[in-house]
Amino acid sequence: MKNIRHITLPQGFQAAGVKCGIKASGKNDVALIVGDQAVSAAIATTTNQVIGAPVQWCRKILPDGFGAVRGVVINSGNSNVCTGQQGLRDAKEMAQRVAKGLSCRDSQVLVASTGIIGRHLPMEKVRKGIDLALAGLSRQNDQATLQAMMTTDLREKSAVTQFSVGGKTVTVAGVVKGSGMIAPSLATMISVVTTDAGICPEHLYSIFKPATQRTYNAVTVDNDTSTSDTAIVLASGQSGVAMDSAPAARKFAAALEEVCRELAMAIARDGEGATKLIAVEVTGAASDADAFIAAKSVANSPLFKCAVHGGDPNWGRILCALGKSAAKVVAEKTTVKIGGHTVFAKGAPKAIDLKPVEKHLKGASVLVQANLGLGKGKYTAYGCDLSREYVAINADYST
Amino acid sequence: MKNIRHITLPQGFQAAGVKCGIKASGKNDVALIVGDQAVSAAIATTTNQVIGAPVQWCRKILPDGFGAVRGVVINSGNSNVCTGQQGLRDAKEMAQRVAKGLSCRDSQVLVASTGIIGRHLPMEKVRKGIDLALAGLSRQNDQATLQAMMTTDLREKSAVTQFSVGGKTVTVAGVVKGSGMIAPSLATMISVVTTDAGICPEHLYSIFKPATQRTYNAVTVDNDTSTSDTAIVLASGQSGVAMDSAPAARKFAAALEEVCRELAMAIARDGEGATKLIAVEVTGAASDADAFIAAKSVANSPLFKCAVHGGDPNWGRILCALGKSAAKVVAEKTTVKIGGHTVFAKGAPKAIDLKPVEKHLKGASVLVQANLGLGKGKYTAYGCDLSREYVAINADYST
Repeated sequence: MKNIRHITLPQGFQAAGVKCGIKASGKNDVALIVGDQAVSAAIATTTNQVIGAPVQWCRKILPDGFGAVRGVVINSGNSNVCTGQQGLRDAKEMAQRVAKGLSCRDSQVLVASTGIIGRHLPMEKVRKGIDLALAGLSRQNDQATLQAMMTTDLREKSAVTQFSVGGKTVTVAGVVKGSGMIAPSLATMISVVTTDAGICPEHLYSIFKPATQRTYNAVTVDNDTSTSDTAIVLASGQSGVAMDSAPAARKFAAALEEVCRELAMAIARDGEGATKLIAVEVTGAASDADAFIAAKSVANSPLFKCAVHGGDPNWGRILCALGKSAAKVVAEKTTVKIGGHTVFAKGAPKAIDLKPVEKHLKGASVLVQANLGLGKGKYTAYGCDLSREYVAINADYST
Repeated sequence: MKNIRHITLPQGFQAAGVKCGIKASGKNDVALIVGDQAVSAAIATTTNQVIGAPVQWCRKILPDGFGAVRGVVINSGNSNVCTGQQGLRDAKEMAQRVAKGLSCRDSQVLVASTGIIGRHLPMEKVRKGIDLALAGLSRQNDQATLQAMMTTDLREKSAVTQFSVGGKTVTVAGVVKGSGMIAPSLATMISVVTTDAGICPEHLYSIFKPATQRTYNAVTVDNDTSTSDTAIVLASGQSGVAMDSAPAARKFAAALEEVCRELAMAIARDGEGATKLIAVEVTGAASDADAFIAAKSVANSPLFKCAVHGGDPNWGRILCALGKSAAKVVAEKTTVKIGGHTVFAKGAPKAIDLKPVEKHLKGASVLVQANLGLGKGKYTAYGCDLSREYVAINADYST
């Protein structure tokens, strides 16, 4: 197994990924990502009103979305959602067991679970998994850790960037799992970003929150906002560089957004059954909020997603998706480009050769640009095509 | 060809369905449904902001949604949407040509078109088709007329009901085309209901509008609200029964809603690639509006639709879809049944044998019932499963 370092590349972190039998496939299913000492943490969780027990635990220990923690325990194969009081007890027990192993307080351990909804966790296995992971913590387990977070993901999704302040290097790294039930609203399925930047929890949160809106929240695989979405950033400070000057904070914000964006695009590209990444760039909207709504409407249109899958230049479906959205759209002011080729301008079709458009649609990345001609609002959403494989994957997920 | 009467069964209507070559398949593509004399009309059209030229024409001649008309001309194979000024001229010319043939005013002819977006109508062919249809009007063409409205529809969708007032029979009949780009908002793709009830346009509209909210608007195939949705009801009065007593009007409202509901359910059952009809009944919502939002969210969830397709009792996806909606949902107060079997009650899974649930999901009609436990709001939405065939149909629709 290749072992590319990412989440433990920033100073001050260790990780572990082990198998304990939650997944019938026998693949890794319990992960730990922890700081050598307490680290600054910021978190964003799902806006779904039906929320998993782990999300409830995280909100309980970090009610403002930030604070000091030791780390996060993650399991895949079972999301511990819709599991009642027993589910809450199980999530708490996971935190307690990790806290005992790390000699910290229960309230310093975040919990995230992903997998099937509505089944109780097999706690015998989970306990064994946590003990194994605690015993195996190191800076050499990044791949095994990432694998323990995955469900239907086909690709491992990670990102790393670095910048320097006063000659010292600061690293920001992240891992994410995605694939299905992906239309994050305030966060994505499960992502953990680590950094050795020196930054207090509240400052970290103020930079992280807007970055998630422009990155994770831009992604949609199937418009099914999960019950478990959890995005976490942990900052150890061990680079020795404090983000307390404006230039340093700006560099850090850019680096954090870059990592989040790379992870977000990786989720879309690895959407269930996806063969292509689709970027929908809306400009000229009446507001940024309108641009967000319009871009998401196109990225979520099953008809458009099917057309992209088939390489069919059926651009009318883009107009349909823009027009049905709650964003203000006036056909006579709208211009639409696919792969840089204008197909519709100010209310009428452009009589162009569609061959280059077809060629663009058959590539691995598709770019749709819609200028609504109404104002300065802009937003770019990321999605993927809709394939027979999406149906195949989801027609018999639980059985 | 079988020839079941439906739209010409009410007294005072004639119809025609012909082929003129708009469709490459050589199938019927121009339809006429007209009254022997002027008839009361009510119409509901799409809420999509990008609207076809025919919808713009209909709104121009019936700005209040009701009035007296002679009939409607319909073509399939090309929706005349996103076609600029030329498209508006073409829609008007269709009305003018029919008006000339019927010796009525242009403004008494409704126009509806369905098919690909963004291409100009082949007017040479359309003119020939209209002339052929005018020449062939009769009370024997119901099937040919319906066929001329269809695009990817596999089944012909019609409904008829009758009631009597003072010993006289009143008939209400309707036809509809559906299949893809179906998530009507105020109307469905194209439906025409005829009746020989005696009723003025304004009264007809006041009964029709709320009926569409409970029927056509309850349907979703893919959450892509079309640019062309048009629902029309035409009343000839030739039954000799006026709907001016409260009991008669109540009977008429019930009959009209029954026909609309039957057509709506037929659209869902014949959704593109669909193998099953799904009814999602939400009760106990904080309001009817909330029930509508929650029911639609479940009926639109691609993950749930895939699970139904595969007969997989993965009920967690129902909770996910309820929770992500804008309707108020509290897991601890929610009960979910599939085919009458309770799978989730008040925050926790029911430890039941899922075999009967699986059996129900493998049938042709699936019933999901969610009681939100919050109030008296209720709504039932109709949808269908998501299959590989939906993707296949839409991956190469225009090419």
